[in-house]
Amino acid sequence: MISIDDLATFCKRRGFIYPSSEIYGGFSGFWDFGPLGVELFNNIKQNWWKYFVNTRKNMIGIDASIISHPKTWIASGHVTSFKDIAVVCKKCKKATKIDKSELEKVKCECGGEYESQGEFNLLFKTKVGALDSQDAYLRGETAQGMFLDFKQIVNTTRVKLPFGISQIGKCFRNEIAPRDFLFRSREFTIGEFEFFIHPEENRCDLLDKKHLDVEFIFLNAETQIKGKNEFKKITIEKMLKENRLEEWHAYWLAEQILWFKELGLNIDKLKIREHTKDELSHYSSATFDIDFEYPFGSKEVAGNANRGQYDLKQHIKESKEKLEIYDEETKKSVIPRVIEPTFGMERVFLAIIADAYNYDKKRENIVLHLNPKLAPIKVAIFPLLSNKKELTKLSQKVYDDLKEDFVCNYDESGSIGKRYARNDEVGTPYCITIDFDSIKKKDITIRDRDSTKQIRVKIKDLKNVLERLFNQEIKFEKAGKTINTRVK
Amino acid sequence: MISIDDLATFCKRRGFIYPSSEIYGGFSGFWDFGPLGVELFNNIKQNWWKYFVNTRKNMIGIDASIISHPKTWIASGHVTSFKDIAVVCKKCKKATKIDKSELEKVKCECGGEYESQGEFNLLFKTKVGALDSQDAYLRGETAQGMFLDFKQIVNTTRVKLPFGISQIGKCFRNEIAPRDFLFRSREFTIGEFEFFIHPEENRCDLLDKKHLDVEFIFLNAETQIKGKNEFKKITIEKMLKENRLEEWHAYWLAEQILWFKELGLNIDKLKIREHTKDELSHYSSATFDIDFEYPFGSKEVAGNANRGQYDLKQHIKESKEKLEIYDEETKKSVIPRVIEPTFGMERVFLAIIADAYNYDKKRENIVLHLNPKLAPIKVAIFPLLSNKKELTKLSQKVYDDLKEDFVCNYDESGSIGKRYARNDEVGTPYCITIDFDSIKKKDITIRDRDSTKQIRVKIKDLKNVLERLFNQEIKFEKAGKTINTRVK
Repeated sequence: MISIDDLATFCKRRGFIYPSSEIYGGFSGFWDFGPLGVELFNNIKQNWWKYFVNTRKNMIGIDASIISHPKTWIASGHVTSFKDIAVVCKKCKKATKIDKSELEKVKCECGGEYESQGEFNLLFKTKVGALDSQDAYLRGETAQGMFLDFKQIVNTTRVKLPFGISQIGKCFRNEIAPRDFLFRSREFTIGEFEFFIHPEENRCDLLDKKHLDVEFIFLNAETQIKGKNEFKKITIEKMLKENRLEEWHAYWLAEQILWFKELGLNIDKLKIREHTKDELSHYSSATFDIDFEYPFGSKEVAGNANRGQYDLKQHIKESKEKLEIYDEETKKSVIPRVIEPTFGMERVFLAIIADAYNYDKKRENIVLHLNPKLAPIKVAIFPLLSNKKELTKLSQKVYDDLKEDFVCNYDESGSIGKRYARNDEVGTPYCITIDFDSIKKKDITIRDRDSTKQIRVKIKDLKNVLERLFNQEIKFEKAGKTINTRVK
Repeated sequence: MISIDDLATFCKRRGFIYPSSEIYGGFSGFWDFGPLGVELFNNIKQNWWKYFVNTRKNMIGIDASIISHPKTWIASGHVTSFKDIAVVCKKCKKATKIDKSELEKVKCECGGEYESQGEFNLLFKTKVGALDSQDAYLRGETAQGMFLDFKQIVNTTRVKLPFGISQIGKCFRNEIAPRDFLFRSREFTIGEFEFFIHPEENRCDLLDKKHLDVEFIFLNAETQIKGKNEFKKITIEKMLKENRLEEWHAYWLAEQILWFKELGLNIDKLKIREHTKDELSHYSSATFDIDFEYPFGSKEVAGNANRGQYDLKQHIKESKEKLEIYDEETKKSVIPRVIEPTFGMERVFLAIIADAYNYDKKRENIVLHLNPKLAPIKVAIFPLLSNKKELTKLSQKVYDDLKEDFVCNYDESGSIGKRYARNDEVGTPYCITIDFDSIKKKDITIRDRDSTKQIRVKIKDLKNVLERLFNQEIKFEKAGKTINTRVK
């Protein structure tokens, strides 16, 4: 697999990700999405929103402010507890963060002992207001926005239990030692939802065979307590039988994996780890980490916690407001319990790009095997020669016909082979060449990124053929007349 | 027109916009997008991105970090100059901000004199890093991200002059007195682009009749200097003839208005105001405000400034980096000049919702006449009765057939008339009713929000009919069999 440093270099070279503020020497922990990165990231975020919000009757979205009332973070416990211990290696002087429990045990990579520098709160603090300024915090997670707005949502929409509130948004954590490219940065994006359930309801009527059959590599709590690291295949059905989670929790864990599958991620690279009793946060009765096999090891890309009533109760205590919902069946107002599936969206981005990255020895070129729906450029359009007006004119027309429906790249420089290579490298699924025959016969060549096969399609059918290809309604080979021309 | 306070109440009541942190008494200057607001706002942002980025060969997008190297804001001049004077009324004690030049002249609404409280910088400050912490700022505009990444983009993409770098993102300004609902808040979203042009190029070959013919209400600089406030109709063509701007500037000003038109905004409510020489920022040779007639007066929704080479030169000075691009025609590296069209995205949101809002006396109900493409819910689906399983089952099937392509709302409570009213109020363009005939004849009723007309359409044709309605390929009346049933 490509190393994380090489992946960062690739991402910079092709305009996916730039280090922030590079002209000023960079700014540790901050990254910019470049022209291709922003398209890929938007596609991932929009796909998430469609999958988890827009196609479900029991889910609504919000977009809460990054800065909210400071009491939010007192109630949530972040102001007092969201802390890391900073340590500096006595030998190599490198700073890093560790858990309190590790202070006596852990040594630096270089072999040196750590010296504690004390606790640091991860929330970024600022001051709001000019004349009457008060301390406020940049949110360290999106979840609190859902709890803050819970009452307004219950009062102004027609939600009934069970239902979820979703959000995708920027979060900030003042990490002591940002590292591993996009993986641990100081500014990042969380996509998550709080799913509210009647406190006495444990049955989920949406749980069907599709969910029960979901299979993955799993490390249970007992094995970890024994000091072992043995992952084994398990199904959601089996986890339910073993009483590792309740039905709603199982449903959402399955849906998280099904979404990764929908994205085209190799789900054999996912590992799910159950938190041990010692590890569980005080608010959680069961938590699962969903790890992905990154170039730097298997690390968390998503998580899923059973938070119970903890957060709503904390905000009830702090705000003195009633955060309840009326349940028509039991004719009572209840404080719902909460299941919280979370995704680190840059971590999803990183998993997708690392998984798609492949050096193709035959082509002597990188090919990014992205799911066509996620590809930043959907279609590249090439006039065979750039100095023939009849070719560029027709190519421009093809571009104009397609641009409203597909993100297109128009490229007229270099050989067709070079243009294929450039597009393979950024994952463009289909390249279209307009040649002299195109003028006579009103057709063009489409070349498929993954197979390098080519077909000939009438210009009038092009949009329709592309639509059906992207919707996976037809196979590439059957979408037109196969041709044998191979261009290097 | 509805007052801004009533609009805020409406937006809260129907889940478009909530005051942030309401359970803690709110937090001045911060707002949350609710379930319908987030959909409408996403549609506006995605429409902007498609119009200005994805359908243009000369434009690329980025998404830069909100926190960047602090030198960014030194180079841009924000650290020293991005200040307002805070004043407090001696009589009513209300705080507000004013321009330096106004201090001697302006009085409070209540008649009281103002007392200056000194200058306040609008940038929110925070500290980045635990052991080696340094001051940093939340960005006050997105523009600097484009200048910071200019060099990396030139080095890693195939851009040629002229080209633009676009971005939509959150910005933060510590406003002394946030007011007018979403209009002046402390956390908001800018959509803007920096369009880079050869410094000696003044011709724009994209400028065509469509742009020249764009007509709007205009207040020129001379009239303002005479102390008059007379707006007159003018075309882009006439502005060019009067040498008020150069061709690229004219092109982008026209495109901004054309986008507002595409959104369905009543462009008669737009007014364009030329900055006077005194008003012009030190970096600008020509600036235009695009104002919209909000409930609280005609105020800026967008702007367009000719920034010349100012920003790149400032960053060259501060970073000592070469921020140039090689021009193939002249075989020289040049520092491009810049045209900057800017949109306050929440201000666009506010303009759209204020413009669409209408109390329909005949229906005795609010109707939100949103452009169907922007509507948060595209289709509402009603089983005629909620207690008939054959109806709810078929309705569920219709919902499942449509949900992948349209954001759908499934509503089975209350009379059909009430369900129409609820959906009119949030701008749902089409309501579908499934009745007993639907089971026999396999067809349903579609009801049009604006005309309240109804047609009968076969279930198998439904998706196709809706697609063509949203693409404005067919008129509603001709999309099916018109029926006369009116439901109150």
